[in-house]
Parts: sequence; C-alpha cells; structure tokens
Amino acid sequence: MKISILTLFPDMFNVFNHSIMGRAITNKIIDLELFDIRDFTLDKHRKVDDYPYGGGAGMVMAAQPVVDCIKHVKKKNKGKVIFLGPRGKTFNQNMAKDLSSEEELIFLCGHYEGIDERIYEYIDEEISLGDFVLTGGEAACIPIVDCICRLIPGVLSNSESFKDESFYDGLLEYPQYTRPLNYEGMKVPEILMSGHHENIRKWRKYKSIEITEQRRPDLLEKYQLSAEEKKIIKEFRDKL
Amino acid sequence: MKISILTLFPDMFNVFNHSIMGRAITNKIIDLELFDIRDFTLDKHRKVDDYPYGGGAGMVMAAQPVVDCIKHVKKKNKGKVIFLGPRGKTFNQNMAKDLSSEEELIFLCGHYEGIDERIYEYIDEEISLGDFVLTGGEAACIPIVDCICRLIPGVLSNSESFKDESFYDGLLEYPQYTRPLNYEGMKVPEILMSGHHENIRKWRKYKSIEITEQRRPDLLEKYQLSAEEKKIIKEFRDKL
Repeated sequence: MKISILTLFPDMFNVFNHSIMGRAITNKIIDLELFDIRDFTLDKHRKVDDYPYGGGAGMVMAAQPVVDCIKHVKKKNKGKVIFLGPRGKTFNQNMAKDLSSEEELIFLCGHYEGIDERIYEYIDEEISLGDFVLTGGEAACIPIVDCICRLIPGVLSNSESFKDESFYDGLLEYPQYTRPLNYEGMKVPEILMSGHHENIRKWRKYKSIEITEQRRPDLLEKYQLSAEEKKIIKEFRDKL
Repeated sequence: MKISILTLFPDMFNVFNHSIMGRAITNKIIDLELFDIRDFTLDKHRKVDDYPYGGGAGMVMAAQPVVDCIKHVKKKNKGKVIFLGPRGKTFNQNMAKDLSSEEELIFLCGHYEGIDERIYEYIDEEISLGDFVLTGGEAACIPIVDCICRLIPGVLSNSESFKDESFYDGLLEYPQYTRPLNYEGMKVPEILMSGHHENIRKWRKYKSIEITEQRRPDLLEKYQLSAEEKKIIKEFRDKL
C-alpha cells in the first residue's frame, strides 16, 4: 500500500522505523512517503498559519500551503485524502478493515487550533481517533496507520497472527499465560496444562465472554452469541 | 508531571522531541523517563516473551521482566501504573482531565499478542485508546500522553489556549478562517468581518451546535443546551 502523509512534523513519523511497521516498510509492503506542508508555503517567512478572522485565541492553518501540498501529492497518489480531525467519524476496527483494502491512501495531519474551513473542499473523509483533544493529527495518524497496516497481507508474520485478538471478533481477549508455571505464588490455570485442545478452546471462549461482560457490556450487547457460545456459557456457569 | 514509560521500544518516544511536548520537556514541565523492559529480563538471550500455555499463535510477554521493571520504576515514581490495553476503559477527555491533575504517572506498553495475566496484579488501571487493534501500547501511549500533557498548566502558551476546541465543552468546533478573504473563489463568511463580537460569538456557537448535530448527534444528545443556546438556535433557524 502506498501511504502519503502530509504533516508539519515529518520527523515524528520516525516512530514507524520500529517494530512491525519498520519491517513492513523495509520489505516494501508499505510504501510510506512524508511531505512537509511547510515546503509548500508561498510566504517568504515560511509561515503556514495566520490569525483567525473574527478574532479568538490560536492560529489557523492557511489554505494555500495545505491545498498546494495536497495537489502535489495527488499527482503521484490516487488514494482518498483523509483528514485526521475531531469532526470525523470515530475510528474503529471496521474502518481499519475497509481502509486496509485500498491500494493508496493520503493522510493530512492538521496542527494548531484548526484548519481553514475551505481546505475541506479538498478532503474526502475525516476520521477522529476518539473524543479527546490532541496537539495535532500526527498523534492520531500514528495509531491509525499502524492499525490499518497490520491488516495488509504480509505485514504480520504467521506467528503474529491476529485472529484471537480483542476486537477482531467483537469480544475482548481471553487471559494468556507463559512460563513459569508458578510466578510469585500465582499459578497458571490447570486447564491450560491439560493438553485437551477442545476444552482449552471452550475455556478461552468462556473467558472472552466473561471478561467482555465485566469490562465492556456495551460490546457484548452488540455481539451475536452463537448457539455453541450459549451452550459454553451454560456449561461453565452450571459448574459454579 | 513526572511520567515514566515502560516499553520495548523506547526510541519510538522520540516523537515527543517535537512540537508542544518537546517544549514542555525542555521547559521541565514534563519530566519524561523511558525504561526499556528488555533491560530487566533475567533470560540470557534477553528474551522478554514466550509461547502461550495451552497453545495458539503469537507470543506472550512474560511476567518476570515486566514486573521487575515496574518494581524498579515504582522506587522513583509513586504514580499509578496504567496499562495501555484493549480491556481498559475507552480513553476520553474527562479521563485526560482527571489524569492531568496527578503529579506522577507510570505507563506500561504491552507488545506481542498479549501479556501474562499475572502482570495485572501489578497494574492499577487499564486504558484502551479505542475499539481497534494496535501492534503495541506505544501507539496508544503517544496520543494519550499528548492529550493529558496539554491540560497541565504551563504546557500550552496563551496563544494556544484550548478553550474553544472540540470536546472541551462537549460540542465540535465552529469553522475557522484565516487570510486570504477569497481563496480560489471561496469567501470568508461576512459576519466574521463585521467586527461585531457578540454576533460573531453567537454565530460560532450556532455553527458548533449545527456541526455537532450533523456529524455527531450522539454528542449533542448528551449535551445540556443552555437557555441562551436554545435562543441562539431559534434566532438562526428563524432567519432561514
């Protein structure tokens, strides 16, 4: 996937030199290009922001450098222009899945107190990371790009398979344990040592449901329990 | 505020050398310390993860290095230990506000497919960035720390005042404009040029409400409209 990021702080994206993203870029599965919006300003002092019309605190990113940067990037990247901003739809795993099937994407990171409203004419979609205020779109772009790229075939190795992770199937993850068997007096549940794969699978499913019920009842409400899952719940609760 | 971050990828946090966070660290308003969990492993190959008991894909972060790292950090930082993980409460602006009043905080970033369940005994709180899967806690920690730190007195300058930003008062932000008056045929709304501060204030309030209604009706439902706001809505809608 070709990903172009438009930002005032390209160095922030050195964060992608590490871990799974770093490997995906090295392996050319992700073609990441960074564009410094400041390089596109026509202002002789290289300014990219100005005072808001109508007064008020804070500076507003001006249309000219941002739009010229978008126009430049669109010559080489035919993907949609996604603005990371507070008015967008809240990001979630389904959006990540949809976006991961695109071949090209352009992300625009705003900064300062806002962007000139007229820039929206050049934006295809706005995505919000959540209901909170960030310094700039960069801090939203980092997790969003990470989440999308994980879903692109070849980015994760087999051993990093994501099938059992929280949110993939709408439930939170079951508890995981690794060596030692006894850590500071806390033992691994015996069922995990049984070697009985079917029982382990059922226990994990039950634990996923139980943890989701305790921590995120809103997720469980949206989840369609299968006949088998209902049976597993009954089996485990009857034992208690 | 003293912030200690426990991670397998300390270099990722170079992202905080920039922009507002970079300045807050230089000005010693934020005392950021990074701890490499790998430095605490007793494994001779410096391994920090191992296979899950009960089988399955992926590796699990082992208790020993993580817990020893937490114990070490707690000698110098008395803040609560916050784990960035999918089972946590979803982060929002109110949580940021509460956390910004703490003097010390410890953030634990997990990686790989999960952490040994017994590590939870050493964790005070779990926070989730949203309903999506990330490679590691780092990509969640970056926006969360940015959001919290913005609320600490002295981090933002006066000109970066945050009072009019989305989510501070429960509404999305009104449109902003800066020079030029006419950009590619798109003009700044005349009211912003009127110099009539009271009318501008009312127009901005109305636009905030209108945009929130269009984009995030769920936010508007939770919002308590004041008598004045109801009057403003009526005034503007009567004109249409």
